[in-house]
Amino acid sequence: MIDPGLSRLCIHTITNKPWAIETAIEEYARAGIGGITVWRDALDGRGPAVVGKRIRDAGLAVVSLCRGGFFASANPVARSEAIRENLSVILQAHELGAPLVVLVCGADPAQPLEDSRAQILEGVSAIAGEAARLGVRLAIEPLHPMYADSRSAINTLEQANDMCDLIDIPEVGVAIDVYHLFWDPHLARQIERCGAAKRIFAFHVSDWLTPTRDLLNDRGIMGDGCIPIRAIREQVARAGFNGQTEVEIFSTSLWATDQRPYLDRIIDAYRHHV
Amino acid sequence: MIDPGLSRLCIHTITNKPWAIETAIEEYARAGIGGITVWRDALDGRGPAVVGKRIRDAGLAVVSLCRGGFFASANPVARSEAIRENLSVILQAHELGAPLVVLVCGADPAQPLEDSRAQILEGVSAIAGEAARLGVRLAIEPLHPMYADSRSAINTLEQANDMCDLIDIPEVGVAIDVYHLFWDPHLARQIERCGAAKRIFAFHVSDWLTPTRDLLNDRGIMGDGCIPIRAIREQVARAGFNGQTEVEIFSTSLWATDQRPYLDRIIDAYRHHV
Repeated sequence: MIDPGLSRLCIHTITNKPWAIETAIEEYARAGIGGITVWRDALDGRGPAVVGKRIRDAGLAVVSLCRGGFFASANPVARSEAIRENLSVILQAHELGAPLVVLVCGADPAQPLEDSRAQILEGVSAIAGEAARLGVRLAIEPLHPMYADSRSAINTLEQANDMCDLIDIPEVGVAIDVYHLFWDPHLARQIERCGAAKRIFAFHVSDWLTPTRDLLNDRGIMGDGCIPIRAIREQVARAGFNGQTEVEIFSTSLWATDQRPYLDRIIDAYRHHV
Repeated sequence: MIDPGLSRLCIHTITNKPWAIETAIEEYARAGIGGITVWRDALDGRGPAVVGKRIRDAGLAVVSLCRGGFFASANPVARSEAIRENLSVILQAHELGAPLVVLVCGADPAQPLEDSRAQILEGVSAIAGEAARLGVRLAIEPLHPMYADSRSAINTLEQANDMCDLIDIPEVGVAIDVYHLFWDPHLARQIERCGAAKRIFAFHVSDWLTPTRDLLNDRGIMGDGCIPIRAIREQVARAGFNGQTEVEIFSTSLWATDQRPYLDRIIDAYRHHV
């Protein structure tokens, strides 16, 4: 059991959803955790610059802002609106001091996946210049195929790599989330490809429970499921990624528990299984 | 709206789970449906030969027996047991007069997917000879990646094609189910490959609902979801498949409805969306 310390551990605000961001910052800082990824709902009613300063003053890094995206729609007005919305997310990240925006790219069940994929390419391309200008990077996050209907038409790391090749801007890369990708027989090869192109911008962990009772909110703590998280982390490290490991757990049952002992369990799981 | 007639329509007994198989046979025959795929639970306490005769006497074809498989286990005793069990399924198919057994290959969350995949290869290889001897074909069914933890480590048509290449026996092919595969950007290419190798043994349809409320039992009637079923059927037909289209819907909510009007809806959906 290696203890890598907690300076490379980052937690997503949504993981401890019951906590206001001020509480999360305080608790993470006290535990010695290295970073925080801010979900936009956690900013609700707060100035991003103020929250960013508070995070840094507590000794934490702002790792990324979650999330932009949702570019795909059969409705062209909605597509334009999504681009406007993403430009405001990039500005928000800039104000927060987040170097990265994670993109959940979108899908519309009312149209073929090929159309959603073309619209995502168009959408990311449309915002990449502004992101680069503000020094904010964009990470395309491939989502598990069970979200291909309405959340993301980008469902494998190969697709994300292909899209990055097409966009071909150094500020556009990939977020690798073990929950979405562990099943893929091409994962190791695509992680290598991703690393060679220097586009692994983020690494997210959680675990796949058996049985999984809900398509969205039944993720497990690392070690409680079947994902070979450490093996994937090692592949990602060999591919050149040296950023923080981000814990992103959506769980109705874990949100219902006392968040302090839950945070202790996350830290313990990070030490033993990541 | 093309009406292809119902002679190419097959229904899985599990689709109308509340019906005893005798009722299903009677109802399908009255509707003019061409075939039936028998789930093993529907045979409970009945002689397969008797049920097979009853199906044929009603003018229906026995399309396949569902299901064998579940070869993967970290426990070698369980693996031997699975092989024995599959040999008895093949015998059951032979007695029933089913020309095909569909294989849900299995996965064990207690071991890496690579191990499960190797054990599946071993398991299918171990039973293929006996299947060939009895004139029963075996269809490897790739399952959606959301089942990679415990139901099947074969999650794409490419993997199924690769496994068939390795086994290299004409009696071992593939079942293509739109529900499991529609999200895959390589699907069209792999259907072509499958057809070129003359190994498309079955074609299953249902639809993906948005939102999907349950990982197992919330499939939709064709046309109620986002899968481009007709487009995939046309690809499968171009690849040389001319067998029956099988409706396989697991749905807690549809099972709770009156099965006769539900069957009418299936027939109507088959005419308009398949």
